[in-house]
Amino acid sequence: MTTDLEELAVRLREFVRVREWEQFHTPKNLAMALSGEVGELVAEFQWLTADESQHLDDEALGRVRAEIGDVTLYLIRLADVLGIDLVAAAHAKLDESARRYDPALYRGSARKAPPATN
Amino acid sequence: MTTDLEELAVRLREFVRVREWEQFHTPKNLAMALSGEVGELVAEFQWLTADESQHLDDEALGRVRAEIGDVTLYLIRLADVLGIDLVAAAHAKLDESARRYDPALYRGSARKAPPATN
Amino acid sequence: MTTDLEELAVRLREFVRVREWEQFHTPKNLAMALSGEVGELVAEFQWLTADESQHLDDEALGRVRAEIGDVTLYLIRLADVLGIDLVAAAHAKLDESARRYDPALYRGSARKAPPATN
Amino acid sequence: MTTDLEELAVRLREFVRVREWEQFHTPKNLAMALSGEVGELVAEFQWLTADESQHLDDEALGRVRAEIGDVTLYLIRLADVLGIDLVAAAHAKLDESARRYDPALYRGSARKAPPATN
Repeated sequence: MTTDLEELAVRLREFVRVREWEQFHTPKNLAMALSGEVGELVAEFQWLTADESQHLDDEALGRVRAEIGDVTLYLIRLADVLGIDLVAAAHAKLDESARRYDPALYRGSARKAPPATN
Repeated sequence: MTTDLEELAVRLREFVRVREWEQFHTPKNLAMALSGEVGELVAEFQWLTADESQHLDDEALGRVRAEIGDVTLYLIRLADVLGIDLVAAAHAKLDESARRYDPALYRGSARKAPPATN
Repeated sequence: MTTDLEELAVRLREFVRVREWEQFHTPKNLAMALSGEVGELVAEFQWLTADESQHLDDEALGRVRAEIGDVTLYLIRLADVLGIDLVAAAHAKLDESARRYDPALYRGSARKAPPATN
Repeated sequence: MTTDLEELAVRLREFVRVREWEQFHTPKNLAMALSGEVGELVAEFQWLTADESQHLDDEALGRVRAEIGDVTLYLIRLADVLGIDLVAAAHAKLDESARRYDPALYRGSARKAPPATN
């Protein structure tokens, strides 16, 4: 079965191939491109209050959606060239966080837990 | 049908709910958290040559996988609190790039196209 | 006359020279290192309210000072290898912003001005 | 004696004051703005080889200078609202790195040293 993410990865591969852009798509360069797009996403929120960030008007939401689209594309592409399974990597980190952040100790708290020791 | 991404979004919602962390998860804060994780990802590549970034040893690949996991989690969570469909947003941006970057004009070139006009 | 910034740039040059690190300090790599450090700085503020970010306790302020130190070092080093005068570059951008943001039009507003045209 | 950096900090304070923008300039928001500008700086280098990043043409160098100007302004402003001395913070971190990175052990190496213990 092909998932939504695999379909995007395949579409990106073809997009890059027909433009002969593989030469630019090293993991190093893709990490930079991802970082640049996240910078644009952060910039959308920089002067907003917490409350305003939760009630974006349609225009702002459209810009944020576009930036999130860019971030998603570079993240999928980076994982693809590295042979990393995004979904598995995310579940593994969430497993780790579930162990580190015992709800009884961290309920309602933004404190950082000590590093994982597994 | 529940996709891999929806499953992660639902798992994250529950992870956050039992810890009463919704109060921290404004779009503004999540964009910052995403940015911090991307900073850690970029740091993994900063002193590597292009070639080295394509041939990571197992230890480096493990660290990169973990950072990509963190980035994916915050990206999914941010999209979820904003009600944005990650996959649709990514396809929309790729549609736009396919229009802006005519293969005949941009083959093998890293030039930036003029902004989209549609 | 040697300014504080020139003194730091010279001290950094010597620090890098005795370690034979010039090979790593390309503008591309230094921009990445700067980005990684800014990610750590942003992470210090990600779960804080606006008000909390204005009243850091001594421990948090110490961490933020250390991150700001790192950011400053990489920024100075990047400008140095590119032969860019940081202070002149900053004044030039502030001149531009002073022209773009007429106080009568932008007082108390976080709206973005149209791009500079000069 | 007023240094170049103090002069910029004072000029920024006045620029902000006449526009009544102090309300937006919390440390949290300024860290985000800094991050956004660093994202634009990184984007200038993302598709360049190491070598190309060392030989920018005048147009690219002009764009990089402008981004470095923006980064410098937000860094100075952030340090100013927090009451942090940029230059002292940078020297303190360079002192720490000089202790952690013994030239005899790290000459020509991009390995990361263990965390400082002072």
